[in-house]
Amino acid sequence: MVKRYLELRSFDEARDLLRKSFPRPDKTEKVPVMQAAGRIVASPVHAKYSVPEVNLAAMDGIAVRSRDTVGATDTNPITIDHFSRVNTGNIVPPEFDAVIMIEDVWEAGDDFRIRKSATPRQHIRPAGEDIRKNRLVLPKGHLIRPFDIGALATYGITTVEVLAVNVGIIPTGSELVPLGVRPAPGQVVESNTIMAQVFLSQMGARCTRYPIVLDDPDLIRDTLRLAVKENDLVLISAGSSAGTRDFTESVIRSLGELIFHGVAVKPGKPAMLGRVNNTPVLGLPGYPLAAQTVLREFAAPLLESWGFAPAPRYPITVHLAQPLVSDLGFDEFVPVFIGRIGDRIIGTAHGKGAAVQMATVKANGYTHIPASVEGYEGGTAIEAFLTTDPGSVERTVMLTGTLDPALEELALLAQDEGLFIHATNPGNIAGLRSLAKNTCHAAPLSLPAHSLLTSYEPLIMYHEGLDLAFIHLATMELGIASRDGLDTGDLPHAKFINTRKGTPSRSIFDGLLKREGINPAQVDGYLLEVHGPQAVAAAILNGFADAGMCTSGIAVAEGLRFVPVAHEDYELVVQSEMLYDPRISTLVSLITSPRFQAILKKKGGYDLTLTGIIRGLNSERILSPLLPKNFPAGYT
Amino acid sequence: MVKRYLELRSFDEARDLLRKSFPRPDKTEKVPVMQAAGRIVASPVHAKYSVPEVNLAAMDGIAVRSRDTVGATDTNPITIDHFSRVNTGNIVPPEFDAVIMIEDVWEAGDDFRIRKSATPRQHIRPAGEDIRKNRLVLPKGHLIRPFDIGALATYGITTVEVLAVNVGIIPTGSELVPLGVRPAPGQVVESNTIMAQVFLSQMGARCTRYPIVLDDPDLIRDTLRLAVKENDLVLISAGSSAGTRDFTESVIRSLGELIFHGVAVKPGKPAMLGRVNNTPVLGLPGYPLAAQTVLREFAAPLLESWGFAPAPRYPITVHLAQPLVSDLGFDEFVPVFIGRIGDRIIGTAHGKGAAVQMATVKANGYTHIPASVEGYEGGTAIEAFLTTDPGSVERTVMLTGTLDPALEELALLAQDEGLFIHATNPGNIAGLRSLAKNTCHAAPLSLPAHSLLTSYEPLIMYHEGLDLAFIHLATMELGIASRDGLDTGDLPHAKFINTRKGTPSRSIFDGLLKREGINPAQVDGYLLEVHGPQAVAAAILNGFADAGMCTSGIAVAEGLRFVPVAHEDYELVVQSEMLYDPRISTLVSLITSPRFQAILKKKGGYDLTLTGIIRGLNSERILSPLLPKNFPAGYT
Repeated sequence: MVKRYLELRSFDEARDLLRKSFPRPDKTEKVPVMQAAGRIVASPVHAKYSVPEVNLAAMDGIAVRSRDTVGATDTNPITIDHFSRVNTGNIVPPEFDAVIMIEDVWEAGDDFRIRKSATPRQHIRPAGEDIRKNRLVLPKGHLIRPFDIGALATYGITTVEVLAVNVGIIPTGSELVPLGVRPAPGQVVESNTIMAQVFLSQMGARCTRYPIVLDDPDLIRDTLRLAVKENDLVLISAGSSAGTRDFTESVIRSLGELIFHGVAVKPGKPAMLGRVNNTPVLGLPGYPLAAQTVLREFAAPLLESWGFAPAPRYPITVHLAQPLVSDLGFDEFVPVFIGRIGDRIIGTAHGKGAAVQMATVKANGYTHIPASVEGYEGGTAIEAFLTTDPGSVERTVMLTGTLDPALEELALLAQDEGLFIHATNPGNIAGLRSLAKNTCHAAPLSLPAHSLLTSYEPLIMYHEGLDLAFIHLATMELGIASRDGLDTGDLPHAKFINTRKGTPSRSIFDGLLKREGINPAQVDGYLLEVHGPQAVAAAILNGFADAGMCTSGIAVAEGLRFVPVAHEDYELVVQSEMLYDPRISTLVSLITSPRFQAILKKKGGYDLTLTGIIRGLNSERILSPLLPKNFPAGYT
Repeated sequence: MVKRYLELRSFDEARDLLRKSFPRPDKTEKVPVMQAAGRIVASPVHAKYSVPEVNLAAMDGIAVRSRDTVGATDTNPITIDHFSRVNTGNIVPPEFDAVIMIEDVWEAGDDFRIRKSATPRQHIRPAGEDIRKNRLVLPKGHLIRPFDIGALATYGITTVEVLAVNVGIIPTGSELVPLGVRPAPGQVVESNTIMAQVFLSQMGARCTRYPIVLDDPDLIRDTLRLAVKENDLVLISAGSSAGTRDFTESVIRSLGELIFHGVAVKPGKPAMLGRVNNTPVLGLPGYPLAAQTVLREFAAPLLESWGFAPAPRYPITVHLAQPLVSDLGFDEFVPVFIGRIGDRIIGTAHGKGAAVQMATVKANGYTHIPASVEGYEGGTAIEAFLTTDPGSVERTVMLTGTLDPALEELALLAQDEGLFIHATNPGNIAGLRSLAKNTCHAAPLSLPAHSLLTSYEPLIMYHEGLDLAFIHLATMELGIASRDGLDTGDLPHAKFINTRKGTPSRSIFDGLLKREGINPAQVDGYLLEVHGPQAVAAAILNGFADAGMCTSGIAVAEGLRFVPVAHEDYELVVQSEMLYDPRISTLVSLITSPRFQAILKKKGGYDLTLTGIIRGLNSERILSPLLPKNFPAGYT
């Protein structure tokens, strides 16, 4: 057995080590006020002068001496002949100590008559009311907000001394190409250091990205030696796993001290910390989600311990749509998609591995599962953190079931209406069960054509007494997809990829074999199951199989050849009451729109005769208010 | 009675009008991905190629043909001679369909032996696992986050088309000077448009600030005519009240249509909306806090209705430290300072008027009181919104009582320890009552010297059976402050400013008058009360009075002359259990530090003999663990 890894530190221990090992560099810079938003005040800011500097009128009216007004009443008005007409903000001349509002004076020739006495300081903004000269405006450590900038400018402050920190970011890896270069197969765009720069810049760090360094310990060593001189913190991207070309640890050891390598956190296990030239050197794993963990949970807290403000974390309690498994002993960070269904906030976790960057892109939050927790049951209320504004929770439509390109087109149209569709693809049965548990707004299902009331077993088994409504999206062709145009007869000689029991393609395929008299054992790959038609197409494209069952829409989209075998109905299924939810009614109006239907027609492979009609599970009830003109009598 | 205002729209009606009257301009621009964070996607972004583009190893190990591994077990190991050594991320050559981890292979000469069969796709990152070519990465309307940038770069995307909007901002006012110019008395730095630019830029707006326009309707008209051509939204700062020089309304009417002028919102009543050249023109009131309301509650929601993302609003429930009064019929926005005391979140409202910009600077949140609410009792739990990170709530020390410059010095030191001191100055009695209600961490009180146990009535009356601890800050001189060095004998001929009953200066002053045989009625201004020594000094400085009682520290700081009359003890008073709160124990260690004492010594007017000792209300108990060396025997 070939030796591999590293001794793992616990997540908490690693973070403690990080924060305790490096005192703050206390570097500062002066920036113009207009560029100071988001920065941290490094030395206290004081007002250059009092604001206001002299007494000002707080109302439009006349400035008077209060002693001239003593005794004025309705029955004994007093005429004031020594006054100054003032508007709000005008100087009150020093001889006057009160202002009478214009509403409370009556013109009397060139003078004014009053019916009420004035007290000293009345309607005057006294000098220094807002701030006095040399008084503190912003303390050290204050995070400067946009509205603070207005105050700074008002008080005569043109530049602010703010915390500064230089972060050097070194990308390593012979497989990397810079952004803008088309990677060859096996190459990747060097994107983790771009992400690190954008992320840390938002905290106020000045980032330097070094040129890509090949997997050569001498080259890495030279760059690191330079970077620790030029920076207060250095990140080395990749080279921190334990493969044959992972040199970061040995380079750090050769120049300084390794503090830890390997943390019990997922993703992010290869995280590494060293000290070179008294500068912290943080090893960023190569997988993007692992790099994100180290940026958010290690780099940001280090800067925070130096006085910088991290992006605020806003917690939200979510009910898990599915069980969430986690390794005991590992702190785990999982992207979560969060939406509101009825009066509950639902979270769908995306534990797809550290390489699937789209999981973070699609998610609007994440959760932290502590090392002591082995996971959660579905339905558990757990704490998550939002990565977008809280409004995104309300604008989300959560779909669970079987995905088809038609749904992606619908999602694009929905975006114009301000709705974000979050769709997961675990298949028909999981979609039905999610509907029953109220963990999705709607379930897109592919059903054997015309099966609605009669023959589709999972529907009979799993509708669980729900009052379901079926919104017809399209009727689609189902058939054999392959690179080479294989037909039923070729199956015994091809590598096949199957779909799970309960999918229409599986039952149709089983029927096909029976009809053709082919023994399933003859079909290489019959036991190799994926969850739906999209996964079938992907397996063929990636060379794991020669043929499989999927819809013509998917086959066409993926450039595969297609032999039709049967039809299926693609339905968006909801609990009937959900038809009144504005998100769903928006979807229905999009489905019935000529625009959507034109898009599907252009794609090809979709029969739109019934698109947009809504039926109950009991065929007698036709729920859609508008039946298409060509609605075939006797269909339901 | 001279005519004044405008017909007020309700806040909700005004916001509805704003959002409904102007369709989105649908302007976009292309930005490099590195500058795209915080922007809104204007047209869907698709992957340039699949990621990964070919099958890759997901582990370090060997790539094999799965069919070569069939039958391998512990007792029947198989030697694999056709393989390729791969590290994580390497290409899996097309002839292989599985990877075996390096931990699961045993070297056998040049070959490897295995003890377990491999299934197709095992430890392979299949092509397109993260995303397939041309698939959607970011939908229209998506707010781009830092971690999204990494994904965009990975997928070969170098520029993104994002929403764009041009906002023109016109500053008007003959009293304005640009930032960098020292304003003469009566002039102000033109800061509201700077604030507007910083605020709206953070939403992704491209802002143009026009040069300052004098209060001349023709000049304002010319600038507005230009600005509506160049922009999608125009803000005119100031000139929207109803004074003799407020021309904004008439200029809008002369060029286009006035939609509303005057909104039942505080601050922000003069808010104005017009339409010129089909461009919305929003009138920004001149008072900074009123301008903030219009920016946050009108300009931002308009941009939001155009697809832009406003700064997220994060709600927090706070218990009001004091009653909060509000005008029925007006929506009101009040800055709130928010901290945690024990297990309750406490909010102190800062309703100081629209001109006091420091109220917003000091606050870490605000609350919105709807028009239908007349205010809240003290202690009511209301909803507020944070303007800083939630951590600021934990780092805050709330002090209520009588403020002295010594406390400001303490606050500066506390900032170095990461604590923010929020101090309000309603006087001794209010401080004691706040302590009793647990709405402050500590009350700074000025007590007649040596009075602790004996004679200071408010303390006897208001300690309410609490177990109080007194942390001695300093002993200070109390006396008569004036511009001209007035002494007791001058009082009958001077304009005096008094302090409220219950303050030591008031009781000492009353004793002084008695001793000198002066009838209070002889003292001009005896009935004019302010709440404490700082306000006394301010009233003298601003010409509302000639003399008043304050401490030598304040008089010195404000450049006033000072005649000593008596001494007072300046104490930080807490409920004894609060001594164990880390925030308070940090303050105690700062008070006892040589650094703090050196600062007070340098300022002058402070006797530090007893600084740092902690006593109970019952003098027998001396709580401080370390008594100063020169602690006078028999003092307590």
